[in-house]
Amino acid sequence: MKLYDYILSPSCYKIRLMAAILGVKLDIRPVDFHPGAEHRGPELLALNPAGSIPILEDGDLVLTESSAILAYLAALSGPEWLGGSAPQETARLQQWLSFSHRLTANLGGARLHQMLLRPGNIEAMQAQGVEALRELEAGLFEQRLRGMRFLVSERATIADIACFPYVALAPDGGISLDPYPNIRLWLRAIRSLEGFIEMPGIHRLHELKPDPHPAGLEK
Amino acid sequence: MKLYDYILSPSCYKIRLMAAILGVKLDIRPVDFHPGAEHRGPELLALNPAGSIPILEDGDLVLTESSAILAYLAALSGPEWLGGSAPQETARLQQWLSFSHRLTANLGGARLHQMLLRPGNIEAMQAQGVEALRELEAGLFEQRLRGMRFLVSERATIADIACFPYVALAPDGGISLDPYPNIRLWLRAIRSLEGFIEMPGIHRLHELKPDPHPAGLEK
Repeated sequence: MKLYDYILSPSCYKIRLMAAILGVKLDIRPVDFHPGAEHRGPELLALNPAGSIPILEDGDLVLTESSAILAYLAALSGPEWLGGSAPQETARLQQWLSFSHRLTANLGGARLHQMLLRPGNIEAMQAQGVEALRELEAGLFEQRLRGMRFLVSERATIADIACFPYVALAPDGGISLDPYPNIRLWLRAIRSLEGFIEMPGIHRLHELKPDPHPAGLEK
Repeated sequence: MKLYDYILSPSCYKIRLMAAILGVKLDIRPVDFHPGAEHRGPELLALNPAGSIPILEDGDLVLTESSAILAYLAALSGPEWLGGSAPQETARLQQWLSFSHRLTANLGGARLHQMLLRPGNIEAMQAQGVEALRELEAGLFEQRLRGMRFLVSERATIADIACFPYVALAPDGGISLDPYPNIRLWLRAIRSLEGFIEMPGIHRLHELKPDPHPAGLEK
């Protein structure tokens, strides 16, 4: 299974993260997204005329939407990541997958503007990003009232993976996460998942127990 | 089940169409989207801070993304509309649901610009709309080679319903459907579905058999 990937892309990281958690081995094909704009070159446009990455190839199947790739990996290797079949769960999963597309536009747009000087109305993207974070905070608060730590149920699903990277990297776009305690708890819960991997800007949880052999005190 | 609805909104029509096909009764609450901008008023912003419609309320559950509402109605009343559980089908369903969000931006954006003078770069939206239609045409052609008339399998799913209205209304945004034979066959296949309902600009298939009692020839 081949992933056309860019290390700094939150959307590509969603796929690497899901695969790592599920134990799926990916054949990573790095794309020179910046500065080379290879995703807009002939080889990749033939695979994905929309000119975006990630792209997953598995035999004849070509998937170009991160939500679809997450669903595919889960269906293959961990169907419990697709949520339960109760109508409310099915609906919540789709609700947050759709929401994740808006995060790409607002939080992702603000980040590209700040990091790569991508043109765009930064104030508008930041304002929409803050609105989206408030919505996410309210959704997670409601889930907490139901005794659930994740967006769809008491366990993580592809909806959590789909929303996680752009939220975790919101500060790169000049948007603070300080006002959102439920979001910060949720980010920690995802970073605690078995099999979690990092990307630049998103790190493992710090070890909270003191180092028994701190370097400065040796001998 | 209450739907906050606007008769001219393709996204609201998705929900009315799915409900009609499934035989689900909706309590329709018309929203004065234009010119009143009621979706941006206090009552609706309290339900959906993103300020968009459709909104579906069912008891405690509030859904604000059309893909999520389609999934909810299908899970309640016609799970076969969610596609099969084979990983490739799960993936294709999500691929086209994600694609439908892009249609809202490009074909929908062009239509709002032409019909309601909504600001925006009309040339860019039309160019992206044409790119999306080419992608859809190619996807439907591949499906036809597999012997399938619809986007995900040989029967229609929520992905077809999600993509249908903005495509059918593309000419409202100044984008012709003439170059896309597979799209035109697919539009006819959806318009032939049992329970199909119209919206302004999207009509039932004409009866092809001659009227046995044409008015002019009576008596």
